[in-house]
Amino acid sequence: MFELQVNASGKYGVYITRGMENFREKAVAKAIGKKVAIVTDSEVNKIYGDALLPFFNDKSVIKIVVPSGEDSKNGENYFKILNTLAENGFTREDSLVAFGGGVVGDLTAFAASTYMRGITVIAVPTTILSMVDSSVGGKTAINLRAGKNLCGTFYQPKAVYINADFINTLPKRELLSGYGEILKYALLERTINISSLTQKADEKLIYDCLKIKRDIVEKDEKENGIRAFLNLGHTVGHALEKLYEYKVSHGECVAKGLKFSVFASKELYSLKDQTVEEMTKLLTSFDHDFSVDFTAKEIAEKTVSDKKCRGETINFVALKGIGKPSIEKLTLNQLFLLLEKYERNNYSV
Amino acid sequence: MFELQVNASGKYGVYITRGMENFREKAVAKAIGKKVAIVTDSEVNKIYGDALLPFFNDKSVIKIVVPSGEDSKNGENYFKILNTLAENGFTREDSLVAFGGGVVGDLTAFAASTYMRGITVIAVPTTILSMVDSSVGGKTAINLRAGKNLCGTFYQPKAVYINADFINTLPKRELLSGYGEILKYALLERTINISSLTQKADEKLIYDCLKIKRDIVEKDEKENGIRAFLNLGHTVGHALEKLYEYKVSHGECVAKGLKFSVFASKELYSLKDQTVEEMTKLLTSFDHDFSVDFTAKEIAEKTVSDKKCRGETINFVALKGIGKPSIEKLTLNQLFLLLEKYERNNYSV
Repeated sequence: MFELQVNASGKYGVYITRGMENFREKAVAKAIGKKVAIVTDSEVNKIYGDALLPFFNDKSVIKIVVPSGEDSKNGENYFKILNTLAENGFTREDSLVAFGGGVVGDLTAFAASTYMRGITVIAVPTTILSMVDSSVGGKTAINLRAGKNLCGTFYQPKAVYINADFINTLPKRELLSGYGEILKYALLERTINISSLTQKADEKLIYDCLKIKRDIVEKDEKENGIRAFLNLGHTVGHALEKLYEYKVSHGECVAKGLKFSVFASKELYSLKDQTVEEMTKLLTSFDHDFSVDFTAKEIAEKTVSDKKCRGETINFVALKGIGKPSIEKLTLNQLFLLLEKYERNNYSV
Repeated sequence: MFELQVNASGKYGVYITRGMENFREKAVAKAIGKKVAIVTDSEVNKIYGDALLPFFNDKSVIKIVVPSGEDSKNGENYFKILNTLAENGFTREDSLVAFGGGVVGDLTAFAASTYMRGITVIAVPTTILSMVDSSVGGKTAINLRAGKNLCGTFYQPKAVYINADFINTLPKRELLSGYGEILKYALLERTINISSLTQKADEKLIYDCLKIKRDIVEKDEKENGIRAFLNLGHTVGHALEKLYEYKVSHGECVAKGLKFSVFASKELYSLKDQTVEEMTKLLTSFDHDFSVDFTAKEIAEKTVSDKKCRGETINFVALKGIGKPSIEKLTLNQLFLLLEKYERNNYSV
């Protein structure tokens, strides 16, 4: 078992292994109170149903199931969770468990952060994306009509239990989505072993990705500075997600965004061919589809409405090479010009 | 003008004066960004309409009006605010202003604490209750079906502007509600000038009350210890609010709760007659109605569902005398027995 301690506004352990048995002792220790509510989605519920129940057999357990998919990260399900907790007499001393991917994780943690101004939440992520990214770092969220993740809090879980075996049952789309975020880490730091990227995510790889995230979050929990590095590929990635109306997954859009980031970095820093080649080679480690079905103008317009975009400038994460991220303050027009050049270049680097 | 600096998880100033003119410079300085959303209720909007607009004439201002009354502290208005901000392109750099009583203050601050994970909120309280209590301390909230304030965050405003002149237009019910909380402060600390309690709340009195609250909040922002002192009178007060279905105001129910607290303190500590008399005399400083229209059993049952009630015991704030609060861990049965004795005593001390 790999263990990672996170020391942000809350301190907690991330435990990474295969199979659930190893977690038993720790899970029970972290779920405080007499009551536990397991929030999950319809897909996870279908496959893993009551897999977590044995961990909490000394407690009164309820299960709250939301439909699977991004649409569930809404106000309706948020209040469904809160009202269920209230009507079942949950107090500040009881616990929530987020059992699912990023949608369930973000939604559940947001509910936990606001129910009675904050109760315990434990994360049991089931997708690569949530294992290597959203389960650690304390960003909680639901979506508004106007955009994704526009409503949320910073709130750390009490523990994160990662069972890499859950990856075995993921559909290809989920794998590609997770690999998109892993590509991001591999561009951010050389510690990510490129060769292992060609296989299914393993425990060590999850650990290495989370270690990068942990180190950044500990230095800048509320994203006033270097936490923005984690947005590498996300400026254009988010815009594409919206343009594809969320029919292309987050990580796949991030992968497309990463390719633009490499192109933009080459332009911004006049990088050597060798540096650029190394980065583009890395991008092809999986079979991501890097095609872009929208014009530079369409992408630029969607970027403006993103919450990472503060006023007239964008904090764009560029790369001076693998492991050398740097934040560039671009005006919207500068970003547009780069996108236009990328478009003229047929979206290739 | 009286000024009070609060040094909690956020640092901010509370400015207390008569008239709005003195605030101009400070208000503009604190409202960051290019956009300001003023949230208010239909009553305040009727009387004071655009009173705040001159403060923000260098900014783009929108106004969000919710119906006046406790029912407005709900999820629907919460999302109305969030969606309005998103659809008007508010970023993390813009500001919200809560212009109204406790309902508007709690609702607006909750929205501010969660919109894009936190944007600036400035409080301009218009009721005594919100001036001396809810505008300072950082508790934000909305109500759930199962109870008041069950959903919220800890989130500090960037500034609080108190114009005591607003008190002139308050209906009697609002005055009595505010005085109920002032009675609480007067029981918590001797610094509150009893004689001034017989008049309308003045700037010095507001300042003195807030100073008590500030000192407690700075020591225990998240209510793990002495912040519970501020719940004096609230254990039974909250239960009565529910039993009266919120037709009797918060502060009036707190006043009724304070009388029970004095009774319970006499029983718990076998207080001297002189001590008890001093406290009961203080309670009659205004013309509060201390009658209770419910049985001990009914009150005890409602207490169980309160979020201050953790599991089997209640942190009950008792008084060893004026200025001598103490937290007693009572079992639900102990509280019930005290309530029953109070009932047998015809709800008198």
